[in-house]
Amino acid sequence: MLHGGDYNPDQWLDRPDILSDDIKFMKLSHTNTFSVGIFAWSALEPEEGVYTFEWLDEIIDNIYSIGGRVILATPSGARPAWMSQKYPEVLRVNARREKHLHGARHNHCFTSEVYREKTQTINRLLAERYGEHPALIMWHISNEYGGECHCGKCQNAFREWLKVKYNNDLKALNDAWWGPFWSHTIFDWSQIDSPSPIGENAVHGHNLDWKRFVTDQTIDFYKNEIVPIREITPDIPITTNFMADTFDLIPFQGLDYSEFAEHLDVISWDAYPAWHNDWETTADLAMKVGFIDDLYRSMKQQPFLLMESTPSHVNWHEVNKAKRPGMQLLSSMQMIAHGSDSVMYFQWRKSRGSSEKFHGAVVDHDNSPNNRVFQEVAEVGKTLEKLSDVVGTNRKADVAIFYDWESNWALNDAQGYGLKTKRYPQTLQDHYRTFWENDIPVDVVTKEHDFSNYKLLVVPMLYLVSEDTIARLRKYVAAGGRLVMTYISGVVNEHDLTYLGGWHKDLREMFGINPVETDTFFPNDRNAITYAGKTYEVKDYATVIELGNAQAQAVYHDDFYANTPAVTSNSYGEGKTYYIGARLEDDFHRNFYQQLIAELGLAPVVKVTHGKGVSVQTRQSEDTNYVFVMNFTEEEQVVGLESPVTDLVTKESLSGEITLKRYEVRILEAK
Amino acid sequence: MLHGGDYNPDQWLDRPDILSDDIKFMKLSHTNTFSVGIFAWSALEPEEGVYTFEWLDEIIDNIYSIGGRVILATPSGARPAWMSQKYPEVLRVNARREKHLHGARHNHCFTSEVYREKTQTINRLLAERYGEHPALIMWHISNEYGGECHCGKCQNAFREWLKVKYNNDLKALNDAWWGPFWSHTIFDWSQIDSPSPIGENAVHGHNLDWKRFVTDQTIDFYKNEIVPIREITPDIPITTNFMADTFDLIPFQGLDYSEFAEHLDVISWDAYPAWHNDWETTADLAMKVGFIDDLYRSMKQQPFLLMESTPSHVNWHEVNKAKRPGMQLLSSMQMIAHGSDSVMYFQWRKSRGSSEKFHGAVVDHDNSPNNRVFQEVAEVGKTLEKLSDVVGTNRKADVAIFYDWESNWALNDAQGYGLKTKRYPQTLQDHYRTFWENDIPVDVVTKEHDFSNYKLLVVPMLYLVSEDTIARLRKYVAAGGRLVMTYISGVVNEHDLTYLGGWHKDLREMFGINPVETDTFFPNDRNAITYAGKTYEVKDYATVIELGNAQAQAVYHDDFYANTPAVTSNSYGEGKTYYIGARLEDDFHRNFYQQLIAELGLAPVVKVTHGKGVSVQTRQSEDTNYVFVMNFTEEEQVVGLESPVTDLVTKESLSGEITLKRYEVRILEAK
Amino acid sequence: MLHGGDYNPDQWLDRPDILSDDIKFMKLSHTNTFSVGIFAWSALEPEEGVYTFEWLDEIIDNIYSIGGRVILATPSGARPAWMSQKYPEVLRVNARREKHLHGARHNHCFTSEVYREKTQTINRLLAERYGEHPALIMWHISNEYGGECHCGKCQNAFREWLKVKYNNDLKALNDAWWGPFWSHTIFDWSQIDSPSPIGENAVHGHNLDWKRFVTDQTIDFYKNEIVPIREITPDIPITTNFMADTFDLIPFQGLDYSEFAEHLDVISWDAYPAWHNDWETTADLAMKVGFIDDLYRSMKQQPFLLMESTPSHVNWHEVNKAKRPGMQLLSSMQMIAHGSDSVMYFQWRKSRGSSEKFHGAVVDHDNSPNNRVFQEVAEVGKTLEKLSDVVGTNRKADVAIFYDWESNWALNDAQGYGLKTKRYPQTLQDHYRTFWENDIPVDVVTKEHDFSNYKLLVVPMLYLVSEDTIARLRKYVAAGGRLVMTYISGVVNEHDLTYLGGWHKDLREMFGINPVETDTFFPNDRNAITYAGKTYEVKDYATVIELGNAQAQAVYHDDFYANTPAVTSNSYGEGKTYYIGARLEDDFHRNFYQQLIAELGLAPVVKVTHGKGVSVQTRQSEDTNYVFVMNFTEEEQVVGLESPVTDLVTKESLSGEITLKRYEVRILEAK
Repeated sequence: MLHGGDYNPDQWLDRPDILSDDIKFMKLSHTNTFSVGIFAWSALEPEEGVYTFEWLDEIIDNIYSIGGRVILATPSGARPAWMSQKYPEVLRVNARREKHLHGARHNHCFTSEVYREKTQTINRLLAERYGEHPALIMWHISNEYGGECHCGKCQNAFREWLKVKYNNDLKALNDAWWGPFWSHTIFDWSQIDSPSPIGENAVHGHNLDWKRFVTDQTIDFYKNEIVPIREITPDIPITTNFMADTFDLIPFQGLDYSEFAEHLDVISWDAYPAWHNDWETTADLAMKVGFIDDLYRSMKQQPFLLMESTPSHVNWHEVNKAKRPGMQLLSSMQMIAHGSDSVMYFQWRKSRGSSEKFHGAVVDHDNSPNNRVFQEVAEVGKTLEKLSDVVGTNRKADVAIFYDWESNWALNDAQGYGLKTKRYPQTLQDHYRTFWENDIPVDVVTKEHDFSNYKLLVVPMLYLVSEDTIARLRKYVAAGGRLVMTYISGVVNEHDLTYLGGWHKDLREMFGINPVETDTFFPNDRNAITYAGKTYEVKDYATVIELGNAQAQAVYHDDFYANTPAVTSNSYGEGKTYYIGARLEDDFHRNFYQQLIAELGLAPVVKVTHGKGVSVQTRQSEDTNYVFVMNFTEEEQVVGLESPVTDLVTKESLSGEITLKRYEVRILEAK
Repeated sequence: MLHGGDYNPDQWLDRPDILSDDIKFMKLSHTNTFSVGIFAWSALEPEEGVYTFEWLDEIIDNIYSIGGRVILATPSGARPAWMSQKYPEVLRVNARREKHLHGARHNHCFTSEVYREKTQTINRLLAERYGEHPALIMWHISNEYGGECHCGKCQNAFREWLKVKYNNDLKALNDAWWGPFWSHTIFDWSQIDSPSPIGENAVHGHNLDWKRFVTDQTIDFYKNEIVPIREITPDIPITTNFMADTFDLIPFQGLDYSEFAEHLDVISWDAYPAWHNDWETTADLAMKVGFIDDLYRSMKQQPFLLMESTPSHVNWHEVNKAKRPGMQLLSSMQMIAHGSDSVMYFQWRKSRGSSEKFHGAVVDHDNSPNNRVFQEVAEVGKTLEKLSDVVGTNRKADVAIFYDWESNWALNDAQGYGLKTKRYPQTLQDHYRTFWENDIPVDVVTKEHDFSNYKLLVVPMLYLVSEDTIARLRKYVAAGGRLVMTYISGVVNEHDLTYLGGWHKDLREMFGINPVETDTFFPNDRNAITYAGKTYEVKDYATVIELGNAQAQAVYHDDFYANTPAVTSNSYGEGKTYYIGARLEDDFHRNFYQQLIAELGLAPVVKVTHGKGVSVQTRQSEDTNYVFVMNFTEEEQVVGLESPVTDLVTKESLSGEITLKRYEVRILEAK
Repeated sequence: MLHGGDYNPDQWLDRPDILSDDIKFMKLSHTNTFSVGIFAWSALEPEEGVYTFEWLDEIIDNIYSIGGRVILATPSGARPAWMSQKYPEVLRVNARREKHLHGARHNHCFTSEVYREKTQTINRLLAERYGEHPALIMWHISNEYGGECHCGKCQNAFREWLKVKYNNDLKALNDAWWGPFWSHTIFDWSQIDSPSPIGENAVHGHNLDWKRFVTDQTIDFYKNEIVPIREITPDIPITTNFMADTFDLIPFQGLDYSEFAEHLDVISWDAYPAWHNDWETTADLAMKVGFIDDLYRSMKQQPFLLMESTPSHVNWHEVNKAKRPGMQLLSSMQMIAHGSDSVMYFQWRKSRGSSEKFHGAVVDHDNSPNNRVFQEVAEVGKTLEKLSDVVGTNRKADVAIFYDWESNWALNDAQGYGLKTKRYPQTLQDHYRTFWENDIPVDVVTKEHDFSNYKLLVVPMLYLVSEDTIARLRKYVAAGGRLVMTYISGVVNEHDLTYLGGWHKDLREMFGINPVETDTFFPNDRNAITYAGKTYEVKDYATVIELGNAQAQAVYHDDFYANTPAVTSNSYGEGKTYYIGARLEDDFHRNFYQQLIAELGLAPVVKVTHGKGVSVQTRQSEDTNYVFVMNFTEEEQVVGLESPVTDLVTKESLSGEITLKRYEVRILEAK
């Protein structure tokens, strides 16, 4: 198990005492792995072509001397000032067409030949110098890729990308972008510009293609970065650190990670939930973390890495509250439980100055191993040392929830429905909740996945869906799968063009219904449904459904569609489909999915009885289940073990009832 | 009665099946008139000087073949990409002095010689080709004119406009703009720029003149557009579609329509109230619609056209909720009741892609005539077919409310009072409410109108008022008119310069008072008045009044001006004036105006008794009254007919009590 | 006592009747002093090098003819249009690097050689022409200096300023700015730009130095302005008008006035509290005014001037409410009570046009001396005529509160804690409140002050503190002083670099504690402490304290640090320190400081018993105390005089109980 974090010794090169304390504290904190070189370009190449690797040699050697390992970063996340000054083309231009000044980070032009060349050069030197260093275990390419550039080079690259996509056929592009609307036909490729607040911004096909281009160009930049690395160190795995979006904790929306994932050897991500906030329960936030974990894990169906987390608080939330005692271990173990083979921190040591000096770190400004945070990190380290058998194990799920970046982009961009109530990622988390509460493993899959092994596939709000995906969903159900869909699904194809002639014929057949209207609610509007004898509140959206062969499972209470179907089910081929026509309160999801869980015999890997707010997640090797029992509440919780297990940390044998303190986690081995 | 809407077949030229369905569905939906060619420039002139009218020929012929008619649009609302590329001067520059890129719509430079020439050329070709087509009944010039350009050409045009306005006398301009304040004297015409967030923006005379210039330059652009059209088709009437502002539904504020109206043959407008919203009653929203109708109708004192409306929902509100069953007919009939000779929709058919694909349409993506919306449109069509006698009839009003665009601009720009509580248009609607609730016809007039025929003239919050208007008001009262004014009236002249020496002498004489202070309230501040034995709440504004010859009709309860006059009346010449010193709750207006209604013997054209939320509006021919009885509530309503009438739709004779279902409308003929 | 205000006759040069009324009304209003020439540049130099002083000669002569005096302004607050047109370098460039157009005011480039030269030229002419005029009593340099310029000249000036500050040592700058973080090392001075939203904006040392530069460059511009003035009129004192920030009333944050103060002969400021607002009591707002007065007075430890205030309302608040009767006198007297030797207004007369025409004035648009505002001004004038003995007297305080502009800037810029809950100036006002409520005089001091004469020094939230200041605080306590500090103090040094190794050793010694964590609260989070047997609510911040030699005076109720110290005290040398670890409700401050007041024998200069909302403030000459008893409530208040006094206005002898009406003020002489 990797335990450590981002280490930026280049901030302390004139403080050998600090560097020496670092090595001492690394041992004390039971850490073993450090990401180095992120943002170190100025320290590595202070003048064009003049390199100063010596300090890094020493750092890596020192880490290795205590048995530590290194994840070596390429420095492209920020560049030296001399480069921006000499080659202004490396600077980004924003959508308003303003060329940015030097400063900040994550802001290079992703098309600039100069920047690509400079990046390859330094990466090659790093690979040559450290490729065979025994401490090197992984490459960390750049940092938190994101953003976009609208400079002239990028405009050309976008046009070339479109030519390829549309086979040099401008008519095809005009068809996809619905060109004649508002006279927006493109007559020549040179007339295309990227979307802009002071230009074109309401052509959805155009916006969607731009977002796809941004993902592709980012990946292209990344692929350029790794050329020398693959060449020189073909056996060292490569990652780059993914992100999530806040303030709701949802998957990062800026790039289509499902496209990016295939180019990485290992997925890693930076998780910064706002624990102990005042707008949701701890358990609900934990559920959201689990959702993203399960998405990022499912992309490659292999363990991922927690690349960054804070051992206390961040400094960029609106309120930066520290983790309460216990949360450091609990939140770290949750990541392991969902498939991480690491607990890594940003940052090893707080910097003295500049904008992240108040971001939590293992070593605080007091430079002491005695404070609460350091001690809790050390406890995580000691725990992780007991979990080496867990490394490499995965999770097996019978349930999948379908997540699609492109559909999210298209829906968010759609002019229609309720501007503030689309909330696609949050809606998926609402559907995930019941499984999480019941300890049923879930994969969160993307459109390239094979669905066939899942007993249940949940596809909420899939606004954009291609013919191909529809065909695959149909095949899945026909072969016996259970498929749940909801309101605002199957509206547009991959060009963001609506399906004509009503809901797609195959969907109508599969679901035995025709959704004829989507009613969009004002914030204070309400309706309700009756399902299985109970009443549940509707808000935001309600689909008016024309019933075909399907059975109505619930009906609306009010409005002009009172007593018409709200939830339906239909047998199709060997399988069965369910359509949830409205946005319903959590309790509906609980009862609806509980029914399916029962029918399909879905169950936790290891059964542990518990109350609300306790989560039991399992990783499985061939012969062993590693069970993480986690109390995400502020109260003591009694949990019941159905069969005897061993506590992996204390080595105790346990059975029957055990009590977990607030935020306590137990890690159990069940054969 | 025109019934139909915006038709954009240029989006479907490669789908003859769709075009053929359109013709079929036009018949089925009982529609008869279509606005074509809006935004069709790219389809009509795909290359500079290369024209492709053939598709439009066919469309118009096809419409005509089923008895339909065409309102032909000039395409200047959006231009082809080749034009922006070849002639960048057609692109608009915003107030921040950023030149916009090609894209979006309604964004040409209104001064550009090139754009004016290109527009005339295509308009001439359209007039030549279709001027004699029997289907052509009207011209639709451009689309929803609005916005402004700050490019160099426009700066020059603004300077020339100012030279004309001020007779080349810079001293006159400096006097009007109060130049010496903050040393802002203009020493040379070349020193004048348009207002800008990065330049001058707080000189009110300057801002006001800029807004006037924008109206004039927009009209000038329009006049340039119609030159070939008037020349070739002198007998085809011309309109352009006006708008309203949301989210409160108030008259469009961007252009002074009272200036624009005289250049049009027919007023038409695009009405998009947010029916069924969660912040006001249906009746109150209907009242606001009626207010705008009565304003746009009064401008030319002739029927107007409803040029655009949605048969279901829009796609650009924050929440896009569909009309409930019945609302389509009710809301359409309300427009007829207030003077429209049409019910037209945006849009005939939903586009497949781009930003308005979710805007309501007669034909939905299902391409079916069977859905609820289509059926309700057809019902409107059938109803309209019974209303042909109503065409051309007008409404006669004894009450006028005075609306002034310039005063609204000046007040909104004024630094003073409460930033968020000015609400001039909304205040006028508050005064209109009582008359609407009591079925008393109202004209909403602008400053060029002859007031002499009205028994009552209501002039709320007329911040800016010229000497000339004061003289006309005085003449009106002296001759026997009743005039109501309120707080924040008569403050500045047409240059936004305050009157000196206290309130204008003529106003003081007419009203017999001197308003000495305007008290501005914080949001939680309240006062109250006693009027006719009842207490009414004051908020936002209270005028402290020095009583002259007037009589106090109400006094304030609290604060340092407790027991001083809040509402006064005064006899002047043959007439009488009333001054309402404070912003008062609706019930005050109800009681105050009820008193005047009684005194002046104001009455509905046809008396129908009813409860709250029912509106009765009448159009009158020489011998017949067409009475629209409309239930703008969610409940059944019983209404009482004083004399026997005939239902125009069912042909039933009716008398006594009849019951209207929620949202039901009955259209009655009373001789 | 100066009484008068800003007088802008250049707006009325073609209205001799108005200018003649002005002189008449000046006498009637009991005013005696007028600030003239502010924004008069266009009127004084309508063409480059062509001067028209004649009108100003006449104005000054006329004022002098009635015994009035003049504060003569330099006109640099706004420039003539011809200058911007001919010398564009005088125009400001904003942080986004947009060059502003001509317009508005307070927007010159503070580096431009041309503007500095033009300014000196006109100032020299003013000094030469009016330097010996007997009416001239003071210079008013420019107007409300503020803002910043980012043009190329300013970039160079910033770089030169940095070279001087860092002794041409780029390493020193990189150390201070913590350069290696995010690879932000500066390799050459030319790589430095000012902070920008489209460039560098998150390097705190950089931001802080930029703000210091802005203050220094503003002062440098000012020093350039006064060169000819000092030369020609060495005996005429110089001021410039300072400001406060709204909407909370706090000291102006844009410039470090503690640096500026030493270059002025007299401090003056423009006070615009939002009296009668709906979010705080009148007394609380009065307390905030008092705080700023005591800060601006303490800077030079001499009386200041109220340079601008409104006799009624302003026009730039969101709600512009007029002062209720009595408030004009009360609020004016409060300024005198806290050390002002003037009551001056913006503005003498309302302008007819442009953006300040609705700002309150002595003479309203009615041009009448009979309205309420004019009468209340005259009453102030009459009262001031009785207060001549008060002129020049000061206030003596045993308590000081420490205010630091740089710390406020650094804390506001800090990424960390709660974004919206830093509120440094407001926190100081919270600590000031108890003394104000108990009529104990307070100095609000800045870091250059000598602390030794104070019995008590209160230093809340001093985030940034230099070694030097720590040493001075230590010396103060060691010599017997009492020092109160709070949470978030002593975090960073003058470069915004954190202290390493935990809280500064000297602070730990002085306070006998080690603050180990700062807990940051979400808005709904709460904790509480018990202090002296009572419970007080904590919000926003709580420090977890490790107790050394100190004594715990209060402990926390809840959370993981329940029962640990929240408030501590410690004996150090001859003195004593107190540490308040949490943000506590007002009642805690009341009880905490009441204790210290008792222990230290702090007392009002003259004891007057009264209820809440009455303030008693005293100015002291060698033998006389001038006691201002002010009722800042909406009710009658009975106050008790301990010894007989004389009413300075009525000359009555008073003793025992007297009753003050709402907003009433009594000014008493106590020997």
